[in-house]
Amino acid sequence: MGRMPERVPGRLPGSPPTLADVAERAGVSRQTVSNAVNNAELLRPDTLERVRAAIAELGYLPNRAARNLRTRSSHLLGLRISPHLEGTAEATMDRFVHSLVEASRGAGYHVLLFDAVDRTDPLAGYDDLLRATAVDAFVVTDTYLGNPQAGLLDERGAPFVAFGRPWDDPGAPHPWVDVDGAAGTRLATEHLLDRGHERIAWIGWRKDSTIGEDRRSGWSSGLRDRGLPTTGLASRVEDTVASGRGASAVLLDEARPTAFVCASDTLAVGVLHTLADRGLVAGRDVAVVGFDDSQAAQLVLPGLTSVRQPLEQVAVEVVRALEGVMTHQPRPEPGLLLTPTLSVRGSS
Amino acid sequence: MGRMPERVPGRLPGSPPTLADVAERAGVSRQTVSNAVNNAELLRPDTLERVRAAIAELGYLPNRAARNLRTRSSHLLGLRISPHLEGTAEATMDRFVHSLVEASRGAGYHVLLFDAVDRTDPLAGYDDLLRATAVDAFVVTDTYLGNPQAGLLDERGAPFVAFGRPWDDPGAPHPWVDVDGAAGTRLATEHLLDRGHERIAWIGWRKDSTIGEDRRSGWSSGLRDRGLPTTGLASRVEDTVASGRGASAVLLDEARPTAFVCASDTLAVGVLHTLADRGLVAGRDVAVVGFDDSQAAQLVLPGLTSVRQPLEQVAVEVVRALEGVMTHQPRPEPGLLLTPTLSVRGSS
Repeated sequence: MGRMPERVPGRLPGSPPTLADVAERAGVSRQTVSNAVNNAELLRPDTLERVRAAIAELGYLPNRAARNLRTRSSHLLGLRISPHLEGTAEATMDRFVHSLVEASRGAGYHVLLFDAVDRTDPLAGYDDLLRATAVDAFVVTDTYLGNPQAGLLDERGAPFVAFGRPWDDPGAPHPWVDVDGAAGTRLATEHLLDRGHERIAWIGWRKDSTIGEDRRSGWSSGLRDRGLPTTGLASRVEDTVASGRGASAVLLDEARPTAFVCASDTLAVGVLHTLADRGLVAGRDVAVVGFDDSQAAQLVLPGLTSVRQPLEQVAVEVVRALEGVMTHQPRPEPGLLLTPTLSVRGSS
Repeated sequence: MGRMPERVPGRLPGSPPTLADVAERAGVSRQTVSNAVNNAELLRPDTLERVRAAIAELGYLPNRAARNLRTRSSHLLGLRISPHLEGTAEATMDRFVHSLVEASRGAGYHVLLFDAVDRTDPLAGYDDLLRATAVDAFVVTDTYLGNPQAGLLDERGAPFVAFGRPWDDPGAPHPWVDVDGAAGTRLATEHLLDRGHERIAWIGWRKDSTIGEDRRSGWSSGLRDRGLPTTGLASRVEDTVASGRGASAVLLDEARPTAFVCASDTLAVGVLHTLADRGLVAGRDVAVVGFDDSQAAQLVLPGLTSVRQPLEQVAVEVVRALEGVMTHQPRPEPGLLLTPTLSVRGSS
């Protein structure tokens, strides 16, 4: 499919009233209507009154493109989305999109979604929108280690707020909002400790995932603070159900844990599969806690206890930070770290 | 949070080149640059060449607001999203958003997401965008019986394409794309018949759901065509896991089915819960098929067979239909019905 042809001009039946319609109704020139909207002080009070009455009667709103040109504002926030993942319990981004749309509405903004033709290019999609000034600011969600996106946007003077810490450069000046993953896994670990577990295993991501290592630290510090062992109880794998299944089978054989904390619900679902394979009952024989409070966590039997990110709050804080960025207001601290909660279900 | 203040004008360091920058670089007036972009035939060839070289060197793109004003096109498609549902296997809309963003990109469009403050108002959110001509067209997804949205947009001359049939008014003139739900449940039923099942139960939505009744008809016609009974084998409930669990328990006691076809994965997950309660193994003792190929279907044990809507194809066809609407091209037929597939997993 080629590019879409421009829309053929011409007013459709029932289409919104134009400036010309207001002019006709009020019996004035179009310039006078324009002045009534933009420079009311130029008009005689009775003329202004007549134009305003016509605007109200017709329900006229200035064309957004014209208003955008005048205010240099599109009232749009750009968000690049990643391809939809199948076969995983990934839930964060779709929930965040909903929350961001709602938080933006309160601030008079809409969300423009885009994706990238070339996903290896960290600025793909951003560049066109930047050069066409099609959005007022971006919400950036890919801040994993080694992704130069935030730095590149900084260099270009593009207004943005990141959902995610600048792992590469903790001193980066741009505003960000993030969820404290380590606090979440610590919460999960303490929940299991409180229920009497002492041999708690960890299944997380590979070592090059800073987010994964951060989540792992909540588990290890939680155990160490109670003088409990971590050695031999941790596994680092790919984020798939099969990896969670395989890693939990090995850990059960070699380390005999009575509980698992996982870096994701995807991995935790793999643990549930291993338990079912062995005739063990999750929550009775072995406890399992995941991370993300996904649809899968809510629906699997017996319900998967999971760390829940406060995405509604993240969205509100991202929009608040964007307001500051767009009005060039200094921030006391660039970053804001929010604390997750634990959704407790049958698996623990 | 109040409305966001307008962005303070003034070029930021690294911000995109402007028409004035091009004029300075080429040593011409701004009007000449504007002519080079919009009315190239007015310029002498050597001047045009010089301006074009400056445009290329600076990477200048005309401001989108200015271009929008000229072409009366925002290059945005509006999509109203519903609140995120927790505790269900609802998957269609998030997958569709991803597919629509991708299909729109190919046509030079971005997707603008909005939601409604007042969700009881079928036009909430649409009205503001319409009056401000902030989008070129809408993609409408709420076409359930009794929702006057499509009719209201039609009356206002708003360009739109519906994902979903006009159930209220099969002769409605607006373009639509939909998935043949009855064909999907018929596929599911025939899959079970081919595996030797003869007592196949239905768990669907209440009778006032036309989509639910359509899906039910695929199950009932599939059985009737083989001379098999449907009486006493069907249940109509709310779309919740608890309802699916309860309805399947009653059907197992009273009608002894060996297989279930469900109107949603949410209901099918409820059936899986009932089987687990009774020590029955899904796929070995009783077969289960859901609808939507959700994350839950892909992750639950032993994997839930499910009807999969071809949402990527729906998105491509919606964008194609929008191209037709925006260029006022006549369509041979307003509607296009696509056929779903069956993702077969362990539960059947």
